[in-house]
Amino acid sequence: MKISFFPSLIFVLLFSSASISQNNVQDSLMLKKIYTAALTEGKSYEWLDYLSNEIGGRLSGSIEAENAVKYTEAQLNELGLDKVWLQPVMVPKWTRGFKEYAYIETAKGEKTITEICALGGSVPTPNLGIKAEVVEVKGLEELALLGKEKVAGKIVFYNRPMRADLIQTFEAYGGCVDQRYSGAAEAAKYGALGVIVRSMTLSRDDYPHTGAMSYGDLPISQRIPAAAISTNGAEYLSSLLKLQPNLLFYFKQNCKTFDDVQSYNVIGEITGSTKPNEYMVVGGHLDSWDLGDGAHDDGAGCVQSMEVLRLFKKVGYKPKHTIRVVLFMNEENGLRGGNKYAEEAKRKGETHRFALESDAGGFTPRGFTIDADTANFNKVQSWNSLFKPYLIHYFEKGYGGADIGPLKGNIDVLAGLRPDSQRYFDYHHAANDTFDAVNKRELELGAATMASLVYLFDKYGTE
Amino acid sequence: MKISFFPSLIFVLLFSSASISQNNVQDSLMLKKIYTAALTEGKSYEWLDYLSNEIGGRLSGSIEAENAVKYTEAQLNELGLDKVWLQPVMVPKWTRGFKEYAYIETAKGEKTITEICALGGSVPTPNLGIKAEVVEVKGLEELALLGKEKVAGKIVFYNRPMRADLIQTFEAYGGCVDQRYSGAAEAAKYGALGVIVRSMTLSRDDYPHTGAMSYGDLPISQRIPAAAISTNGAEYLSSLLKLQPNLLFYFKQNCKTFDDVQSYNVIGEITGSTKPNEYMVVGGHLDSWDLGDGAHDDGAGCVQSMEVLRLFKKVGYKPKHTIRVVLFMNEENGLRGGNKYAEEAKRKGETHRFALESDAGGFTPRGFTIDADTANFNKVQSWNSLFKPYLIHYFEKGYGGADIGPLKGNIDVLAGLRPDSQRYFDYHHAANDTFDAVNKRELELGAATMASLVYLFDKYGTE
Repeated sequence: MKISFFPSLIFVLLFSSASISQNNVQDSLMLKKIYTAALTEGKSYEWLDYLSNEIGGRLSGSIEAENAVKYTEAQLNELGLDKVWLQPVMVPKWTRGFKEYAYIETAKGEKTITEICALGGSVPTPNLGIKAEVVEVKGLEELALLGKEKVAGKIVFYNRPMRADLIQTFEAYGGCVDQRYSGAAEAAKYGALGVIVRSMTLSRDDYPHTGAMSYGDLPISQRIPAAAISTNGAEYLSSLLKLQPNLLFYFKQNCKTFDDVQSYNVIGEITGSTKPNEYMVVGGHLDSWDLGDGAHDDGAGCVQSMEVLRLFKKVGYKPKHTIRVVLFMNEENGLRGGNKYAEEAKRKGETHRFALESDAGGFTPRGFTIDADTANFNKVQSWNSLFKPYLIHYFEKGYGGADIGPLKGNIDVLAGLRPDSQRYFDYHHAANDTFDAVNKRELELGAATMASLVYLFDKYGTE
Repeated sequence: MKISFFPSLIFVLLFSSASISQNNVQDSLMLKKIYTAALTEGKSYEWLDYLSNEIGGRLSGSIEAENAVKYTEAQLNELGLDKVWLQPVMVPKWTRGFKEYAYIETAKGEKTITEICALGGSVPTPNLGIKAEVVEVKGLEELALLGKEKVAGKIVFYNRPMRADLIQTFEAYGGCVDQRYSGAAEAAKYGALGVIVRSMTLSRDDYPHTGAMSYGDLPISQRIPAAAISTNGAEYLSSLLKLQPNLLFYFKQNCKTFDDVQSYNVIGEITGSTKPNEYMVVGGHLDSWDLGDGAHDDGAGCVQSMEVLRLFKKVGYKPKHTIRVVLFMNEENGLRGGNKYAEEAKRKGETHRFALESDAGGFTPRGFTIDADTANFNKVQSWNSLFKPYLIHYFEKGYGGADIGPLKGNIDVLAGLRPDSQRYFDYHHAANDTFDAVNKRELELGAATMASLVYLFDKYGTE
C-alpha cells in the first residue's frame, strides 16, 4: 500500500519546465492556494445548508426569497467587504396554492392519480378542475398539423422526451423546453382547454418538474392552465392513450398571480486597488422554484459566487478591479434582477469588463463557456494549462448565463461555469432539488474554479 | 427559447476539416454509434439494479457472491457470445457475524454508542469485547515513536484524515489507507489490545467504511481486532480525548475466518475475426463488501464491462481480436480471481494485448490511466480528439487496476477507466454504496467510453 503524504504537485508546477514563466509560477501557486482554501476551509456548503434547509425554496415575491435576501446580505457583511447593498427590483409574485391534483379516467370510470404540478405563471383551472379527452403530440409542429378540429375542447399532452443520446444535457433540454414555455399559448390558439407537459428530465421518476411558461400576447380571457407531469406519469398516460384514445384526464390547480412586489438583488464588492471603477461580476440567482429548496438551482451558484470574494480575502489577494458578487433576484420567472442590474450599470455609466455566472448546478466543474471576441477567448485558452491540475478541461465559446446576459454589449467577456451536466435535470425545478443532492467537494471545486478565472481576468485584464 | 432538434455533431465531425482521414471519420461515427446505443438502449443499469437490489452485497464466499456468479453467467449467455464459462478459483471466506457494537465511556461512566464495523479479515474481539484506554495517533510513524510503553494494553486509534486539498480523491485515499491495512499488525507489535481506524472517506457522516487489512506474518496468537469508526465518530472521539485522555473505549465484533471455498471468475468472449488467439480483456470485480450492495464498488465496473461486449453486438462491430469480459472474484480481500486469471492465461500461453478495468465507481467518466510503454501511450493520446465530443479529456500514464495487474509483463497495455472521483469515497466500502447512488447516464457513459477504447485498440492493435 503506497503512502504519499506530500504529493509533488507544487514541485512539478515549479520545476517541470525551464521555460516556465515567472507569472505562470505565481499563477500556479495562486490557483493552488485558492483550491486548497476552498476544499479545506470553504464556507459555501455551510451557506447552502442554511439557504436550503433553514430558508427553503425561494420563489420570487415569497417570504423565503425575502429571508434569503436578508441572510445573504448579513453573510456578505460578515466577510468584511468594502460595500454591501441591496438593489431594489420589483418582481412578479405567482403562488402555487394548494397542491395540484390529477387523475386519468378510463372508459370504465377507473381513476389513476398521477403526479403533476402547475407550470410557473400558469392560470389556475376552474374551481372544479378540468376534465377532457387528451390529444398527445410530440411538439408544437405536430400540434399545428392537427389544427383546431382535433384540438379544440381537449387537453393537449406534450410528450416529446429529452434526447438521451446528447452528451450535454442542456442541449437536450434546449430541444424540448419550447413545449413547456410556449405549449399553452399555442394550444390555446386551437381551442384546447389545458395542457400537460412531460417533465424536462432524462430520469424516469415520479417528480413533476415545474418551470417558466409564457402566454405571449394572448389575452387573459384566452389563457389556459398548464401543468407538468412526471416522466413516469407521461409514459403511463401515453401507453394508456394507445389502448384508450378516448380516456379522460382531470386536473385541478390553484395557482394565482398577484401584483408585483418589492424585492432586491444582493450585491457586495471588494473595491479594486488600481481600477476601482472597472467592474468584474460573479453571480448566481437567489430565487428558486418552490417545490424543492433550490439547492442546485441556484443556491449553489449563489454560495459559490459569495465564496469567490471570501476566497480572495482568505488567500490575501487584492484585486485590481472592483470585484462584485451579485445575487440576482427572479431569474426563474422574469429575469427582473438581471435586467435591473444591467440597467443600473448602464445608467450609472459603470464600466463592466467581465461577468461570470454559475447557474448549472453544484456539480463537479468541467470548465467554462465563454461569450467574447476571439482575443478574449484566446486569452482564456492560454490559461488552460493552469487549470489542468484541477481537471478543468472544457473551454468553449458559448453562452454566459441568463442573469449576466443583459450586460451584453457593454462588457468585454461573459462566462458561464460548466459543471458536469449528467445529473442536473434529475433535480431541476423539482421537489428533489434539495441540499442532500449536493456534494460538498463538487460545490467547493466549482467555487475555486470560478475564483481562479476571476483572478486571472483581474490580474491580466480583458482585451 | 432555442429549439435544436438535430445538433450537427456528425456534420461537424464529417466536414470540419478537409484533411480529416477516412479512418478518423469512420471512428467518429463508430464512437457516436456506441455512445448512442449505450445512452438510449443500454442494459448496464438494469443489470446493476438486479445485482444490487435482488442479490445485494457479494462478499467472497457468500451465497450472494455465488448468486452473482450464476446471474452474470446467465446474462452473458443471453448476449449470444461465442463462449461463456466459469473459471474456478478458491477464495477466502470471512464473515462479519452479528453487528458490531461500540461505545465511549467517560470517567463518570457515561456511555456514548458509536458506529463501527470490523475491518475485513480482522479477528473477532473476545466474547465480552474489549474495553481499554485509547491512544490516538495520526499514523504508523507516530505509533512507532510512542513505542511499547505508551501503547501496550491500549486501543490504538488511527485518526489521520484523508487530505481534502487533493483533487484526485484516490491520492488522498492512498495517503491514508496504510492505517487500515497495516494498523493492527503494527499496533500488535507494541502490545495494543485492538485498533480503531478512522473511515477512509472525505465525507463527515455516520457510516463506518470497512476494507481489507492484513496481519502480515504476525502469529495468529498475537493478532488483535481492528474496526473502522465513522468520521463523525472519529471526530467526536478525538475531541473527547482532548478533554478526557483516560476515557475508555469498548468494542465487540463477531467476525470469523473460515476455510477457503470454491468460487469463480465469470468469463465471456467474442471470438476475434482475424486474431482469435490474441486477447483483449475488459473487466471489473464481482465480489464486494457486505455492508452496502456494492453498486459502485464494483457492480458498476462489472455491468459496464458486460455492456462493452453487448454494445459491440448492438452496433454490429466484429472485433479482430478475441474480446473477453472477465468478472473477477475476490478483489476486495484476496485478489484471488485476478491472480488466477493471469496464472491460467500464462499456463495456456494465451497472448494478451490489452486489458481495461473499471473499478473506480459508476460516475461520469473523465478518461483513462494507461500503464504501457511510450509507443502505446502515444497511440492512446492520438485518439484524444475522438473522445472530446464525449467530454473525455483525461489520458495519463498510471495504474490500470488491481485485477488486471497480475497480467503485467505478459501484456502490451493495461488501462483503467477514470470516472470523476469526488463522490467515490462517500460510498466506498460502506452501507450507503447502494444502487440509488448510481446515476444511469453516468454509468452508461462509462460503458460507452470503455467500449470506445476497446474498439480503437482492437481496430488499430497495440504496439
